Amino acid sequence: MTGPSAPDRLLAVLAAFDHDHPALSLTDISRRAGLSLTTAHRLVGALSDWGALERDASGIYHVGLRLWEIAALSPRGLALRQIALPYLEDLYEATHENVQLAVRDGSEVVYIEWISGRSAVGVKIQVGARWPLHATGVGLALLAHCEAAFQETYCGGHLAGFTPHTITDGATLRRVLAEVRHAGVAVSTRQITDDALSVAAPVRAADGSVTAAVSVVVPERDAQTPALIPAVRLAARGISRALGWQPER
Amino acid sequence: MTGPSAPDRLLAVLAAFDHDHPALSLTDISRRAGLSLTTAHRLVGALSDWGALERDASGIYHVGLRLWEIAALSPRGLALRQIALPYLEDLYEATHENVQLAVRDGSEVVYIEWISGRSAVGVKIQVGARWPLHATGVGLALLAHCEAAFQETYCGGHLAGFTPHTITDGATLRRVLAEVRHAGVAVSTRQITDDALSVAAPVRAADGSVTAAVSVVVPERDAQTPALIPAVRLAARGISRALGWQPER
Repeated sequence: MTGPSAPDRLLAVLAAFDHDHPALSLTDISRRAGLSLTTAHRLVGALSDWGALERDASGIYHVGLRLWEIAALSPRGLALRQIALPYLEDLYEATHENVQLAVRDGSEVVYIEWISGRSAVGVKIQVGARWPLHATGVGLALLAHCEAAFQETYCGGHLAGFTPHTITDGATLRRVLAEVRHAGVAVSTRQITDDALSVAAPVRAADGSVTAAVSVVVPERDAQTPALIPAVRLAARGISRALGWQPER
Repeated sequence: MTGPSAPDRLLAVLAAFDHDHPALSLTDISRRAGLSLTTAHRLVGALSDWGALERDASGIYHVGLRLWEIAALSPRGLALRQIALPYLEDLYEATHENVQLAVRDGSEVVYIEWISGRSAVGVKIQVGARWPLHATGVGLALLAHCEAAFQETYCGGHLAGFTPHTITDGATLRRVLAEVRHAGVAVSTRQITDDALSVAAPVRAADGSVTAAVSVVVPERDAQTPALIPAVRLAARGISRALGWQPER
């Protein structure tokens, strides 16, 4: 037998769902997963029986509650989020701006928590959304603490630009990362949209490694950046301590 | 070939992870999934390559970030939670007590959000945890709005007791459910632990169906139940409106 293995076919059905396609018909699934309608039907049936997918009254499939329950066990997903949430709430109360928690996956940041202020800047980032490391505050905070070889490869690669202010030059990025390590905080100005700024700080695990980053996004025009820095650093240290990290003496 | 199908074997690997077993060795997975070590090794490899599982430095497997990203698309999981979170935060700010959001899965409630107050009662419920419908405030709010036939079957079945105060009698449960429908709010007193009380209200979707429930859990001894009721109802109505529900005129 040729083609993808049985596990890969089943995982292709799950991977057919993403932020732009959260609800799919059987035909959509079969096309997006590259499977025959017969195979897709059989696999969707198994996933639905198990609870990984749910079929609504109109016959459209959604990601199911059972998958969510198991995913909630992910130490880099909901488990981290649950430890961090009180500190993110405090940071939100102190700033009333958008607050985020993100982790690194390869060369991207993945947002695992996002508390939106009613009056906060209208940045459209969803839980589970991804951005390249160099273009966001959390990404800079994470990248600055990666292994040197990874940083060097990243700085030497293509750096996508989103606004005229995005860092797209490797030498500039290297300098910025050194500043982030020195200051213990990353400031990303107008890199994703022209009107927003983010202040981010690294979160450390019990072994001292940087495992996540926390940030606040504010409108660039009236940003009180110096005032935000201690609040963001404090939140990051609070989460780190809750994860078992102890500061060096 | 006999035994479980290929999809079922892969899903059995995922189902080996639960709240009591969030981190497993390959041997643990093989035993808990009822698979040979060879089969488990192959399936765990496929799941790890894809990102559904992550292997740590000590060789132990955890649920991976990729699964979490896809699960975040679940309309009854994170998607609902993201819409509800600002209202849950407001309810927490107003009460400084444990605030929960839950949905029904069969005859159980599943908690999909939980904001814990620092000074709040020490009830141990985790995101993803399950309880039978009759024993919790959110469960009573959800059950009271199920189809009549489902309610009748539930009331006629075995009702597990957790404290001397748990409703374990079908006739009593029927009466309580009628009161919940009439009052628009459910009060569950000392049903799970002897020292806590919860006040819950139903959350409606755009089509008017009850899709979730929101609640506050407080210590029973100093509960200001009458004062909590309007706050919980207001939060539930706010979430319902955000879901597209419009009150009847």
